[in-house]
Amino acid sequence: MGGTGQAMNTDDLASRLIAGERRALARAITLVESERADHRQQAGDLLKAVAGTGHQALRIGLSGTPGVGKSTFIESFGTMLTGQGVRVAVLAVDPSSTRSGGSILGDKTRMERLSREPNAFIRPSPSRTQLGGVARRTREAITLCEAAQYDVVLIETVGVGQSETMVSEMSDLFALLMAPAGGDELQGVKRGIMEMADMILVNKADGDLVAAATRTCADYSGAVRLLRKRAQDPEGFPKVMMVSALLQDGLGAVWDDMLNLLAWRKANGHWEKQRARQARHWFEQEVRHGLLGVLKTPEVQARMAELGAKVAGGTLLASDGARQLLDGLKKP
Amino acid sequence: MGGTGQAMNTDDLASRLIAGERRALARAITLVESERADHRQQAGDLLKAVAGTGHQALRIGLSGTPGVGKSTFIESFGTMLTGQGVRVAVLAVDPSSTRSGGSILGDKTRMERLSREPNAFIRPSPSRTQLGGVARRTREAITLCEAAQYDVVLIETVGVGQSETMVSEMSDLFALLMAPAGGDELQGVKRGIMEMADMILVNKADGDLVAAATRTCADYSGAVRLLRKRAQDPEGFPKVMMVSALLQDGLGAVWDDMLNLLAWRKANGHWEKQRARQARHWFEQEVRHGLLGVLKTPEVQARMAELGAKVAGGTLLASDGARQLLDGLKKP
Repeated sequence: MGGTGQAMNTDDLASRLIAGERRALARAITLVESERADHRQQAGDLLKAVAGTGHQALRIGLSGTPGVGKSTFIESFGTMLTGQGVRVAVLAVDPSSTRSGGSILGDKTRMERLSREPNAFIRPSPSRTQLGGVARRTREAITLCEAAQYDVVLIETVGVGQSETMVSEMSDLFALLMAPAGGDELQGVKRGIMEMADMILVNKADGDLVAAATRTCADYSGAVRLLRKRAQDPEGFPKVMMVSALLQDGLGAVWDDMLNLLAWRKANGHWEKQRARQARHWFEQEVRHGLLGVLKTPEVQARMAELGAKVAGGTLLASDGARQLLDGLKKP
Repeated sequence: MGGTGQAMNTDDLASRLIAGERRALARAITLVESERADHRQQAGDLLKAVAGTGHQALRIGLSGTPGVGKSTFIESFGTMLTGQGVRVAVLAVDPSSTRSGGSILGDKTRMERLSREPNAFIRPSPSRTQLGGVARRTREAITLCEAAQYDVVLIETVGVGQSETMVSEMSDLFALLMAPAGGDELQGVKRGIMEMADMILVNKADGDLVAAATRTCADYSGAVRLLRKRAQDPEGFPKVMMVSALLQDGLGAVWDDMLNLLAWRKANGHWEKQRARQARHWFEQEVRHGLLGVLKTPEVQARMAELGAKVAGGTLLASDGARQLLDGLKKP
């Protein structure tokens, strides 16, 4: 991000990004990922500069535990879309990379075919960031992808829990990828995840696993019917389907259903309402994030270290120490 | 929590809890789970009242994705321990219950045998709480279980990601339960999770799955050897073992290894250092939590709603709205 004339750089970056230049998009995302104060300022300028483009993508959240074939699915699904002239951006959100560099085998060999497509843009998860930071970076990256004229932004995450809630809060629709499994394992799927999902895709419906996939599909269909009907769902949603990412089977049907769901929600005002609700949610998150910034001054950090040492030594209760620190903040 | 004379109630509750009365412990945990200001005050008093007992439990974090047999493991492992006169408390941390009531089939039928043991105490995850609140509640519940003379506090969580980090930050040792799987799926295990785990237990090493479990065990042993050696690990740790919770196979060895690990860490000062580091970490979390409390006043809530509506309507950028709100806070 070096060079002179920051404002000019930002404007230049914005126009190259809007023109759909992939390298500009990559650089812009690097900028929004930075925590440096001057970069935050530039990122703000950039986001304002691209705010007017009006291009909106379909934001698809995709989750699934390790081993269900997410990379293969994104590779096949993304390549199908780019083959139809749809421009696809993939953003990964990996909460476990807060601790280390991500999955053991790394991301480099993932989605090789898709990454070679000129209409595709793939961005791995930034590492060593707090989940709060990841959320902001991902939202801003989505905005940048939209400004860069991508038609689909696929936000990929892993696992069960917090990161899925986060991704569903920035997506227009949320798909959960599942593996075929014994009937016993259904009980392990949390209602919260099921309630988030607009589509449950039972992957690996190929070879030896077709029977298991069919059974799993039936199990989830049954479970989904037990859930309370949501206002934002047309008849037949949440939908449970079988796919084989490996054989590229069922992916056209998934896409058709996504477009149908989107059209229905747009026609019925749900899409707009959901985006507004999400914007409000993330605004409130920004407020919280900003408020916590007061703890980052050297004085407060020093005081925190001092009280923290007492807590660690067992001579001060954590709650009492926290009260002492916060009382100190109130007197400027 | 009704009745008159709050201070007296807290003292009474504290002494009944220290005497090991299960109902008092349950009531105390309900108290620390409450967000009501008077309850928070009472909870603080209670925690102070029990702080002097000095009884310390072995805090074991246990994680695993749905379907790996966590409930069966806790049932078998816990019953084995209570059979040896060890007093066992089980606390569940379920991040997905922030959205709804938890797993579809519910918790009632889980761990039936263990729940009938007089030396066991089982507490399901509180629902509809923020992960931050869950963390505080769980830490305080651990303290209460220790004061109530439990020897082992098993903190159970699910999935991949944030909640595991949280649980590992309040545990003396962290065990990861895995299912037998094909070699391909190893790549899906995030290094972050592996780095947290002191023990990887490959469950379901029974019946048809023995061969798969043996292979999985070898795969993880290989993967674990690739990780950087941690100062807090004796030779042979992190350890990968096969167990069958169903057949109660290998659980004695797991317990022996846990005790050996604990003894080694205590002898080498790691246990104490880790607890101190954790205390400091949670103190800092308390500070953050307390700071965010200023957003809860009616005035700030009203201002937030007003700016949030503008953000949702698209006439204000989230970051600009956040800055306006925060600037307002600074002028009292």
